[in-house]
Amino acid sequence: MEMLTVGTVAFDDITTPFGRAEKVIGGAGLYSAIAASYFTGPVNLVSIIGGDWPKDELAALQQRGIDIDGIEIKDDKKSFFWAGKYHDNMNGRDTLATELNVLAEFDPVLPDHFKDSKYILLGNLTPEVQSKVLDQIDPGTELIVLDTMNFWMDVALDQLKEVIKRVDLITINDEEARQLSGEYSLVKAAEVILKMGPKYLIIKKGEHGALLFHGSEMFFAPALPLAEVKDPTGAGDSFAGAFLGYIANSGDTSFENMKRGIIYGSALASFCVEDFSINRVKGLSEMEINERLKTFQSLSQFDLKLG
Amino acid sequence: MEMLTVGTVAFDDITTPFGRAEKVIGGAGLYSAIAASYFTGPVNLVSIIGGDWPKDELAALQQRGIDIDGIEIKDDKKSFFWAGKYHDNMNGRDTLATELNVLAEFDPVLPDHFKDSKYILLGNLTPEVQSKVLDQIDPGTELIVLDTMNFWMDVALDQLKEVIKRVDLITINDEEARQLSGEYSLVKAAEVILKMGPKYLIIKKGEHGALLFHGSEMFFAPALPLAEVKDPTGAGDSFAGAFLGYIANSGDTSFENMKRGIIYGSALASFCVEDFSINRVKGLSEMEINERLKTFQSLSQFDLKLG
Repeated sequence: MEMLTVGTVAFDDITTPFGRAEKVIGGAGLYSAIAASYFTGPVNLVSIIGGDWPKDELAALQQRGIDIDGIEIKDDKKSFFWAGKYHDNMNGRDTLATELNVLAEFDPVLPDHFKDSKYILLGNLTPEVQSKVLDQIDPGTELIVLDTMNFWMDVALDQLKEVIKRVDLITINDEEARQLSGEYSLVKAAEVILKMGPKYLIIKKGEHGALLFHGSEMFFAPALPLAEVKDPTGAGDSFAGAFLGYIANSGDTSFENMKRGIIYGSALASFCVEDFSINRVKGLSEMEINERLKTFQSLSQFDLKLG
Repeated sequence: MEMLTVGTVAFDDITTPFGRAEKVIGGAGLYSAIAASYFTGPVNLVSIIGGDWPKDELAALQQRGIDIDGIEIKDDKKSFFWAGKYHDNMNGRDTLATELNVLAEFDPVLPDHFKDSKYILLGNLTPEVQSKVLDQIDPGTELIVLDTMNFWMDVALDQLKEVIKRVDLITINDEEARQLSGEYSLVKAAEVILKMGPKYLIIKKGEHGALLFHGSEMFFAPALPLAEVKDPTGAGDSFAGAFLGYIANSGDTSFENMKRGIIYGSALASFCVEDFSINRVKGLSEMEINERLKTFQSLSQFDLKLG
């Protein structure tokens, strides 16, 4: 089934203990669309770029089955730019520079053929932009997923809560879940957040895995322990894109199938962090992905032989 | 099969955001023996206490199938005492007081009928005491498990490394694994530590679960997300005791069976933190334990339907 993702398509400047990647392509929209494209198609990408974003990379997206008709190009402007430096343990990062550029005037207008998308991923953007996208989507969606971050909780909590009411699933990290709910325990945080509207909540814990909550049900997916993490940028977006791509392709939004989706998401995230930018996540073979999925199985499956 | 555990039987004074427990019974030997006693017996407990440790609690241990012949009682001395305060998020704690008392003169002499124990848990003690216990064990053991902590890496690293050579499995937390190996990545840390002698390594990550390493194999068990954690004291010891108790009873030291053992250990740890001291972990029913094991199954099991 058709899936739509909205998010930044941008440039990043990334420093990690393993090196630096200067002005490489990035952005939540880019990572999520690429990750989703392994599992479903077309992937309708909604974003905005400047004239500086490489045209050959746009063509590469099309070759993957990503529909770029929803990418507005402002030829005389510059693309969104983010520079960050990760701490030695990779668990934290400092933002060194944020240049909104075209993003400051992002007022998404969906191509008509995007409007009947059934699976929607609202990448981390202002709640206002996220709302505007939802306003243009035809009724009868199957699953609307919202990603957001602490920044919007700080500066636009009311608008954020309005969007949250309109979605089926939120994906945020553990600190954000605590901030949004006012509860330290993630179990209690989930209870509070699930009362805000969504039926599902995914709490991302980075190297410590991810939790899925639905009513009183709970599922935990581990992150893959890796010998080397080169660059965590885009891992959460790859996770969300692969998750929704898998769900969209199967057309199954049951809790059991969401468990599978989370493992697919975790697998793509594990590839993403193995190299800078989209270097690792852009050229995966079906065999590599299947091997990685099997690694997740052997990592976490057991048989208690209970009666 | 017979299992032996050596560790402190003591008093704790514990402050957490949920309250305070003054001079309650505790200690690694106590927690591990009680947890193990649900799954195997007899559990041979080796420890030392003062005349102040309650006699009725000793009798309660015997009723559980714990053999206390290896507990030396110094009637005119005081038991080991530890006071600690947990941080608001329960992830860290400060030691407020440590009174060694009888522990300063702990020179374990194993009763003859303990010496043929096949499953040995060396609780967190000086490497010298751990070695002395091993010296008294008959050859032909099935599994020797060593628990230790950063303190011994700081003050007695050489002696610690000597004991490590003699055991089959080490259990330490993530920070300790990093300190012992000099590697930040837990995968790399495991490679280094498995070259020190043991065939198996369990890295405990507290609320983030536990990892089992063996050769190139890796297994991850989640911790159970809980609405309330009242007191983390003894969780790691309950984990280790239940793990080895399960393995001892089954007589199966295969990797597949160790996976099960780790889930049993995680289940007992999840009970332990629900209340202060041994309050929760001492009175579990078989049904409660089975229900908890099933919760761990539904928390982490999925079916990818791969070919």
